[in-house]
Amino acid sequence: MNNTQTKQTSLPHIVIIGGGFGGLYAAKSFKDAPVKVTLIDKRNFHLFQPLLYQVATGTLSPADIASPLRVILSKHKNTQVLLDKVVDIDPEAKKVFLKDRDELDYDALIVATGVSHHYFGNDQWQDDAPGLKTVEDALEMRRRIFMAFEAAEKETDLEKRQALLTFVVVGGGPTGVELAGAIAEIAHQSVKNDFRDIDTTQAKILLFEGMDRILPPYPEESSAKAQEALEQLNVDVQTKTLVTNIADNSVTFRQGDDTKTINAHTILWAAGVKASFMGKVLADRTGAELDRAGRVMVEPDLSLKNYSDIFVIGDLANFAHQGDRPLPGVAPVAMKEGEYVANLITKRIEGKIVEPFKYKDFGSMAVIGQNKAVANLNFGRFSGFIAWIIWVFAHIYYLIEFDNKLIVMIQWAWNYITLGRGARLITENPSLQLEIEPPQKPEKSAPETKEPAKETVSV
Amino acid sequence: MNNTQTKQTSLPHIVIIGGGFGGLYAAKSFKDAPVKVTLIDKRNFHLFQPLLYQVATGTLSPADIASPLRVILSKHKNTQVLLDKVVDIDPEAKKVFLKDRDELDYDALIVATGVSHHYFGNDQWQDDAPGLKTVEDALEMRRRIFMAFEAAEKETDLEKRQALLTFVVVGGGPTGVELAGAIAEIAHQSVKNDFRDIDTTQAKILLFEGMDRILPPYPEESSAKAQEALEQLNVDVQTKTLVTNIADNSVTFRQGDDTKTINAHTILWAAGVKASFMGKVLADRTGAELDRAGRVMVEPDLSLKNYSDIFVIGDLANFAHQGDRPLPGVAPVAMKEGEYVANLITKRIEGKIVEPFKYKDFGSMAVIGQNKAVANLNFGRFSGFIAWIIWVFAHIYYLIEFDNKLIVMIQWAWNYITLGRGARLITENPSLQLEIEPPQKPEKSAPETKEPAKETVSV
Repeated sequence: MNNTQTKQTSLPHIVIIGGGFGGLYAAKSFKDAPVKVTLIDKRNFHLFQPLLYQVATGTLSPADIASPLRVILSKHKNTQVLLDKVVDIDPEAKKVFLKDRDELDYDALIVATGVSHHYFGNDQWQDDAPGLKTVEDALEMRRRIFMAFEAAEKETDLEKRQALLTFVVVGGGPTGVELAGAIAEIAHQSVKNDFRDIDTTQAKILLFEGMDRILPPYPEESSAKAQEALEQLNVDVQTKTLVTNIADNSVTFRQGDDTKTINAHTILWAAGVKASFMGKVLADRTGAELDRAGRVMVEPDLSLKNYSDIFVIGDLANFAHQGDRPLPGVAPVAMKEGEYVANLITKRIEGKIVEPFKYKDFGSMAVIGQNKAVANLNFGRFSGFIAWIIWVFAHIYYLIEFDNKLIVMIQWAWNYITLGRGARLITENPSLQLEIEPPQKPEKSAPETKEPAKETVSV
Repeated sequence: MNNTQTKQTSLPHIVIIGGGFGGLYAAKSFKDAPVKVTLIDKRNFHLFQPLLYQVATGTLSPADIASPLRVILSKHKNTQVLLDKVVDIDPEAKKVFLKDRDELDYDALIVATGVSHHYFGNDQWQDDAPGLKTVEDALEMRRRIFMAFEAAEKETDLEKRQALLTFVVVGGGPTGVELAGAIAEIAHQSVKNDFRDIDTTQAKILLFEGMDRILPPYPEESSAKAQEALEQLNVDVQTKTLVTNIADNSVTFRQGDDTKTINAHTILWAAGVKASFMGKVLADRTGAELDRAGRVMVEPDLSLKNYSDIFVIGDLANFAHQGDRPLPGVAPVAMKEGEYVANLITKRIEGKIVEPFKYKDFGSMAVIGQNKAVANLNFGRFSGFIAWIIWVFAHIYYLIEFDNKLIVMIQWAWNYITLGRGARLITENPSLQLEIEPPQKPEKSAPETKEPAKETVSV
C-alpha cells in the first residue's frame, strides 16, 4: 500500500465514471486540487474515438489511438484509476456500486459513460451490420473488409463474387462518410495490385443516408462538397434512403415509394446512437429526465435537477441551454464539459460560485480520404486539401497532448507516400476459431490449377 | 482481371504451403523464374515471429511485425497467394487438397508449416499456461499480464494479491528468457508509478528451466551471462526444475527430490514445440520418417526420400546432415532452406544439378531486456549493451527487408527514451467477445457451383 489513501481520506472524494474525453478531461483538471479522485472505466485505456475508423480500415493499430488511463494520469497522485464496472448508484447515501469491489462513497459524482450503437429497435441487425464504438468493433470491421477481398479471390461464382465486393455503409454522418471514403481507397488504391483473379477496382461502395443530404448537421455547402469528393472516390452516395431490413449478405432499403434489395457481403452500421446504461440508472435513481435517445437532460451547470452533486457530461448529457439544438456529441464538447465541472467543484469547495456552462464552438470536420475533407469552422469553411491538412493537424495535436502519439503522424506520413495500409491483418478473436469449417462442398478447382502440359517438364 | 493465368498455363506449378520465413523466402526466390507459384497460408500475413514476445509484453502492435503476404509478393506476378488451409496431399497424383477450394495440382511441393506448442501430453495445461505462436496468443498473453496488475490493484486479500503479482514462465529457451525479462521490466519500470494500492516492484517473476542452465543450446558462458542479466532484472531463475502440474492459479514443480507448489495467477508456456499437422500427413502419405517431435527427416537436398518433388523446410524439417545435431528451428535456417529449394527447382528445370544444402551458421542471439542481451556469433561472443545493439540492428534489418517497418525502430527508440510501452491495451477480453460474435461470412458464402466461370473472367 502506498499512503496516498491515508493521506487523503479527509479530502472530498470525486468519483468519475467513464474515461472517455469527458471523464478524462475532468480527471486531468483536478490535478493538484484538494480532492481525492477515483476514475472508473471498464477498459484500461482511453480510446481516441475520432480515429477509430482508421483502425477499422487498416491504417492504424489499436495501440496508436489508445492510451492507458494509468499512464495519462500517473503523475496525478490524488487520482486512482479503477478497472471496474458501475452497476448502480444511491444518490441519497452518495454511493456508487461496483461489479468487482464494494461500493465507493462520493462527495461529487461525474457520469461520463457516453453512448452506444442504436439499431432503432432492430438489434437483430447487429451481427450482419456491426457498428463502430470499441477497439473490438474496429478489429471486426477490419477483418470483414479485408476478408471480403480474400473470399472474392477464391470465389468463382460471379454473382457471389460481386456480393463479396459490395460494401454498404449505413449512415451519412461523419463516421459513415469516413468509413465509405476509406473503403473506396482500399479497393481502388491499397489492394489493387495484390490479387490475381479479381479486379478490386470493380468493388461497389454504397453510402446510405436517410435525410436528403449526407452530414446533415453541417452546412449544405459542406454536404455537397463531401458528396462530390466521395463520388470522385467511386462511392455511390444514396440519400433519402431508409434501410428497412438487413439480412445475411443483403440490405433492403426504401427510396420514396420503391423498395430495393442489394446483395452485399459487408454491411457497416454508422447510423444511430443511444445513451449508455447509466442514463437509465440515473433516471431510475434520481428521476432525471431523458431525451428520446435516452440522454440525460442536465441543468445549466451540467448537474442534475435536485442533485447538485451529480453531474453528467459528454455524449450522455443533453445540454439544451445554448442554441436551438442540444450540443453535439463530439469530443471537444465533452472535454470542455469535463474541465468545466472539475473547475466548478473545485471552486465550490472554496465557497465560490461559477457561471453556467457555455460552449464555444470551433466548428466541425469530416475527412473523406487522402487530401479530401470538409471543415466548417467558425473562422471559415474549407474543403479539399486545406480542410484535410487542418483535420490532420487538429487530430495530431490532440493525440500528442494525450500521450505523444507521434507514431501516428509517422504512420500517416508513411501511408501518404506509399498509399499503403500498415495494419491489414485479418485476426480472429478466439471465440470465432471454431467457425472455420465451411459447410459447403468446395468448388471445382480454378483454371490455373488444371493446366495441361504438366508432363512437358519433369521437376 | 490480369492475364498472368493464361500467359503461364504451360509453366511448371510450384505449390508452397506456409507463409513463414521458409515458405516466404522460397516464394520470393522464384521471382522471374519460369514457374507459376501458389503460396497457401491460413493467415493473410507473414508474422515476424522473433518479435512476437514484444507484442505479448506491450511494446509493439501486431501490425508492426506482420506484413500482408499479398503486399510482400504483389510484384511477383507469377505468384498467387491463397488464404486457405491444406487438408491432405496425394504425392502419387501430385495433388494438394484445400479446405475452401478443390485440389491443386503441383509439379513441386514445398511444405513449410512449422511447429506449434507442445505440452508433453498435458494439453489440459493450455488454458492456464498459454503458449506464444500466433498474434492471438500474443494478445492473450498481453491481456493476462496487464490484467494481473489491474486485478491486484482491486484485490484486498493480500495472499490473493501476491498470487496476482506472481508470473511464472515455463521454459528457459530464447522465448522464455525474453518473456521473463520483459515482464520484469514491466513490473519494475513501465507500470511502477501507475498504481495506488499496489507496489508493482513487489511482483515475483520466475523462470523455470528443466536443464541445468537456461539457453541450453548456447555456450555455457552465454547461459551464465543471461542468468546474471535476468537476476539483475529481479527474475528468479530456477533451473533443473520440472513442471509436474499446472492448475488454475498454481504451478507444481519438482526440483531434485522435493516437489513444491507456487500460487501464480499468470503462467506462460515457452517450453516445447511439436511439428504441425502436415508432418503427420507427409508421414502417412509418403512414408516419410519423423523425429520424436514429429518433424520430418529430410534428404541432403531437403526433399523426401523417394519423393524428389516434395521438399520440407523450416521448423518442420529435421536436417541431420550437418553437425552432430539437427539444424535449429530458427528464422535464418528457414530462410536459407527456402532460398536453396527455390534455386534447386529452378536449376532442375534447366537440367542442372545443385550441391546438397549447407547452412552457414552466423550464431544465435537472445535479448533479456533493455541494453541486455547475449549474442553468440561465429565471429565472437557478446553480452550486455553490445549484444543488445547487435540484436536490435539484426532485427531491424530483417523487418525493413520485408516491409519497411521503420515504424518499429521509431517505436523502440521512443520506448527506449521513455521506458514506456506503447501498446498496453487489454483487449479481446471474453466478456466483450460476447458482444461481437460475428458470423464467418466468407465461409457462409463459399461457392457451391461446379461451373468454373473463371475462364470467362480471368482472360
